[in-house]
Amino acid sequence: MNDKKHNFSNDYSELAHPQVLQALAAATGQFSGYGEDVYCQAAKDLIKQRCGEPASQADVHFVSGGTQANLIVISSILRSHEAVVSTSLGHIYTNETGAIEATGHKVCAVPTVDGKLDASKIDALFDEYDNEHHVRLKAVYVSQSTELGTVYTPDELAALSAYCKNQGLYLFADGARLGSALNSRAWGLDYADFAALVDVFYIGGTKNGAMYGEAIVITNDELKADFRYNIKQRGALLGKSAAMGIQFQALFEDRLYDQLAQHANAMCQKLSEGITALGYKLFSPQQTNMIFPVFPTDIVSQMHALYDFYDREPVGDGFAVRLVTSWATPVEMVDQFLEDLAELS
Amino acid sequence: MNDKKHNFSNDYSELAHPQVLQALAAATGQFSGYGEDVYCQAAKDLIKQRCGEPASQADVHFVSGGTQANLIVISSILRSHEAVVSTSLGHIYTNETGAIEATGHKVCAVPTVDGKLDASKIDALFDEYDNEHHVRLKAVYVSQSTELGTVYTPDELAALSAYCKNQGLYLFADGARLGSALNSRAWGLDYADFAALVDVFYIGGTKNGAMYGEAIVITNDELKADFRYNIKQRGALLGKSAAMGIQFQALFEDRLYDQLAQHANAMCQKLSEGITALGYKLFSPQQTNMIFPVFPTDIVSQMHALYDFYDREPVGDGFAVRLVTSWATPVEMVDQFLEDLAELS
Amino acid sequence: MNDKKHNFSNDYSELAHPQVLQALAAATGQFSGYGEDVYCQAAKDLIKQRCGEPASQADVHFVSGGTQANLIVISSILRSHEAVVSTSLGHIYTNETGAIEATGHKVCAVPTVDGKLDASKIDALFDEYDNEHHVRLKAVYVSQSTELGTVYTPDELAALSAYCKNQGLYLFADGARLGSALNSRAWGLDYADFAALVDVFYIGGTKNGAMYGEAIVITNDELKADFRYNIKQRGALLGKSAAMGIQFQALFEDRLYDQLAQHANAMCQKLSEGITALGYKLFSPQQTNMIFPVFPTDIVSQMHALYDFYDREPVGDGFAVRLVTSWATPVEMVDQFLEDLAELS
Amino acid sequence: MNDKKHNFSNDYSELAHPQVLQALAAATGQFSGYGEDVYCQAAKDLIKQRCGEPASQADVHFVSGGTQANLIVISSILRSHEAVVSTSLGHIYTNETGAIEATGHKVCAVPTVDGKLDASKIDALFDEYDNEHHVRLKAVYVSQSTELGTVYTPDELAALSAYCKNQGLYLFADGARLGSALNSRAWGLDYADFAALVDVFYIGGTKNGAMYGEAIVITNDELKADFRYNIKQRGALLGKSAAMGIQFQALFEDRLYDQLAQHANAMCQKLSEGITALGYKLFSPQQTNMIFPVFPTDIVSQMHALYDFYDREPVGDGFAVRLVTSWATPVEMVDQFLEDLAELS
Repeated sequence: MNDKKHNFSNDYSELAHPQVLQALAAATGQFSGYGEDVYCQAAKDLIKQRCGEPASQADVHFVSGGTQANLIVISSILRSHEAVVSTSLGHIYTNETGAIEATGHKVCAVPTVDGKLDASKIDALFDEYDNEHHVRLKAVYVSQSTELGTVYTPDELAALSAYCKNQGLYLFADGARLGSALNSRAWGLDYADFAALVDVFYIGGTKNGAMYGEAIVITNDELKADFRYNIKQRGALLGKSAAMGIQFQALFEDRLYDQLAQHANAMCQKLSEGITALGYKLFSPQQTNMIFPVFPTDIVSQMHALYDFYDREPVGDGFAVRLVTSWATPVEMVDQFLEDLAELS
Repeated sequence: MNDKKHNFSNDYSELAHPQVLQALAAATGQFSGYGEDVYCQAAKDLIKQRCGEPASQADVHFVSGGTQANLIVISSILRSHEAVVSTSLGHIYTNETGAIEATGHKVCAVPTVDGKLDASKIDALFDEYDNEHHVRLKAVYVSQSTELGTVYTPDELAALSAYCKNQGLYLFADGARLGSALNSRAWGLDYADFAALVDVFYIGGTKNGAMYGEAIVITNDELKADFRYNIKQRGALLGKSAAMGIQFQALFEDRLYDQLAQHANAMCQKLSEGITALGYKLFSPQQTNMIFPVFPTDIVSQMHALYDFYDREPVGDGFAVRLVTSWATPVEMVDQFLEDLAELS
Repeated sequence: MNDKKHNFSNDYSELAHPQVLQALAAATGQFSGYGEDVYCQAAKDLIKQRCGEPASQADVHFVSGGTQANLIVISSILRSHEAVVSTSLGHIYTNETGAIEATGHKVCAVPTVDGKLDASKIDALFDEYDNEHHVRLKAVYVSQSTELGTVYTPDELAALSAYCKNQGLYLFADGARLGSALNSRAWGLDYADFAALVDVFYIGGTKNGAMYGEAIVITNDELKADFRYNIKQRGALLGKSAAMGIQFQALFEDRLYDQLAQHANAMCQKLSEGITALGYKLFSPQQTNMIFPVFPTDIVSQMHALYDFYDREPVGDGFAVRLVTSWATPVEMVDQFLEDLAELS
Repeated sequence: MNDKKHNFSNDYSELAHPQVLQALAAATGQFSGYGEDVYCQAAKDLIKQRCGEPASQADVHFVSGGTQANLIVISSILRSHEAVVSTSLGHIYTNETGAIEATGHKVCAVPTVDGKLDASKIDALFDEYDNEHHVRLKAVYVSQSTELGTVYTPDELAALSAYCKNQGLYLFADGARLGSALNSRAWGLDYADFAALVDVFYIGGTKNGAMYGEAIVITNDELKADFRYNIKQRGALLGKSAAMGIQFQALFEDRLYDQLAQHANAMCQKLSEGITALGYKLFSPQQTNMIFPVFPTDIVSQMHALYDFYDREPVGDGFAVRLVTSWATPVEMVDQFLEDLAELS
């Protein structure tokens, strides 16, 4: 894309994993439209199997992108006057051009330090939003992993889940980076444990090996009815949904999806260890495939000449930057980055 | 997909043309996100070149599906109280689960026989919708080719275009099957002649060789501002938009897109000629890759046992069915269909 | 307003009935906001009493206008992908500037001759709208009395109601002119019989004695939850809702509301009888306070010089015009109109 | 409403000023519908005259409530992807049940201490919202007076207005309590100075003498087109809009509107002076008809037994409560409140 050594700015800079591309190339013949084909069926079965009990009875749907998944799920769940709670860093709050509001719903944001929500923050909202002069809080949006690369631990998620059940709130997890989260040491459990704690979530394909496609998994029966109508209404029911079935089949056969996430996490851990060994702090702990080291501003500039990455915000005298690894990140590039950083430090 | 001989129910039953798949497989390395990559740039240039003057100054954007293209274009164009005119057979009116209405806009339908709109039908609407107690008509939606497989001729489209300009209406063409339309003998002119008559249109990839992707082309400067915001807000700005760039580059290099449409049209013409030679009527003239022959109901049943296709509506004693060919339709299957039909007739 | 003899164009040309104005003038002191005052409570009790069993358990809410009532009820009832059925003459379809669509929902119109819907027309829609590529039909909108001044008879409404229950459709009645309808000989039963057949309706104040205000009555328990949130969200929860309580209290004490409707109906019947006695036809039978006589076009012009009224549409050689009477129409003006018409005829 | 001595909880607890009620009672005869009557015309002329130059060319429209005014103005101004900036205390952000979001637009809130916005806060938003992954900021919402009873001074508003013009932002002022603001010593100038600094605002009737009704004043020509369509679409174009014309005519003849606001302000100032004389602090300075004194919690409880008012939030050991006066507040009740407070203190 340019003459820099490597792009660490995100995890969607490479087209798709070779096994995914091969599966696409191998799919010949005719198939049914709109996701009613054998590939989608097989992929759904694999996903439900991976999610285990009780999610084996879930409904699975494929859509092409994460913002789309978010807006379809949320607008499908809520009545007109109902709103969704998010952290102030939530992707739906800051980075989706008002996509949720465009479906008519307010996103109620609460401040966060580590990218996570907890019950006390939602309680504070309920204190304020207690009658018909305010929106009714009805859904909670969390990202697993979060926009800061952190992971809800099993205890944190269980507590939030119990709170939501108790308050009549649907818990929806944005899993654009679910692979990295569930394969993180900070989670340490399996998909089934995760799926049992939320009402609906999606498994991100785009950022973990697929060319495009996110798998929405609905475990709460109340939220299943007519979901395909909502997919269609938002322009997300693709004629050739089969292509997403093919990709997810490739990703969930033999747990390729997990292997790719593990690679991304391992590369990030290596990067993180090298950076902290050089004496730099992280803005947020390394748990997945995304870190925010704080560098002096002149180092930031010099590294920008060599690598692509995003700046986040000033921290003390320095600047926190965002480094993201992926299933495709070569270990050589991690080594090179650390070497260049060491030289400049 | 099943044990029938062939599926004539639509033109999106095969994954993608081999050259498209090869281009995807060949695209290695890293690229920029959200359509700001070299592939999208190259594809846009090719499309603008194909569209010629004055469309060479157009803005081109890629989104993953047709309903998405329709809802983004229309909601981007209109203010709250404005509405779009369509025929009563328009895809946005009947087949998109209220996608346009979900963005807040009424679709005003006028009856049609041949799938086409003309000025007199819109005039009749204006007579009724003449003040603030009614929506303001501001955009006109046509499909080229239409939902009945017909094509606006250059004269028809020029007349409609002039009317729209005169009335302050934006003219938007749904080109899900634009290849078939512009390569039809009923059009007979080039892309440039078409692009000059509309304010915005899209070139359908999904139904003509691509795995997914539609290219929105905005020729009217008034409609260009902030279009990417609207794409993002509707969940259609894919991280790996590059994949659509790769596909459209493959389709518009060496005019593969036109060759594929010509094949689909030719297969349909052959099918049409064979069917009419057996004495059957067509509900709508063959001009593109879709026909609606009228068969006795027992023939319909018997052919359904052998082939997949959609039924449309009763016509006299018989039933009009929909047969669609594509870039991938083998001539042998057309021959086989005609042979089977002859045998049953 | 001008120097014509009288305005027969609608039933909202006079401010409010004197008893309503007196009640407003008499309401001194302080009261609670947003409808939680003693006047609203008293008015709701009177309305529920008037509606009888089983509507005595209904929820009653006051909003300021009919379009507002329609859009709040419908958007509160429906999920995103659901739609409402109306006749093609329905006020929500033609005369509300896309108010329902602006809340995200399609209005599915079916043709009508007499302003009424019946089951067969909805069945025809269901034939077409049978999967997720179309909106889901979930509510039915009828006007009682209709936009043509006609009234659903008890049998007609019972049949439609049974059909809706059977199909899982909510039946909503726009009662902008409910007084005229329920006091029409074509209805012949009481409020209780009407309320038992619909899920939600509103009682129009504006067109029958009030300065403003419509009373929404929700009889179906499923539709009651959080309705005040929806009123507030659409800007219709007025701080001084008490003023509507005062007005409806005045209208429903001693059945003033019915007396006013009876006067309007009687004036219309007199007008109708006089007109037909002169040999003119009605486009639609006189049942309430609105008729559509067909006059030769020169008579229409000459009468326009003397009276205000709306033209509707050409019928044969003549033109159907709309004449509306109200609680305030003086019998002298009816006599005068008939005298002038006789002279011109 | 209950047996307390007085209700200080808001300024909409009394029906309407006697001159308003008399004007309504005096309006006999027939009038045109939907605001095209002589009363509305006269009221609009008086309002434009009061606003002076350059607002004499403004468009004026009447709607029944404040939330309605807010949602109509904002949804009429903005394209789909555009958003409005507000303080985190803005009525549209916290107290309207997501009314703006229900029209599809995000409200971007910035923190405030005194209820006011300034350029630096909006600049900080622009730093974040700088491309198509975020909403486009296009309008700014301020309340004059604010939700904390404070007033933008001429200098503050001029600075904000200049900033908005420079940034291409429309400046919209919610004037639910505009009378109290423009008659506050903190403003000190005339209506014309105010009207010249904003693009659109509304003059609140409900909280200053009217039974209902807010007058939207559009001074920026760009925002005038088709505004009535938007009023109608949101259900706010009342058949008997004349009633609002009558009320505003009464309020703006002989500047009754200003006299009422001055009374409310004077009562609040007296209350404020008495309270501070007893040694209590105010959470926010007294400038209009609303104050937030901080009382010990036991005093709050004891005063609640005698008077109605709202609690706001804990401040130190005590609690800030909200006291609102109106055009109807009797001086005796202010004296009584202060006497009771002194006794408990």
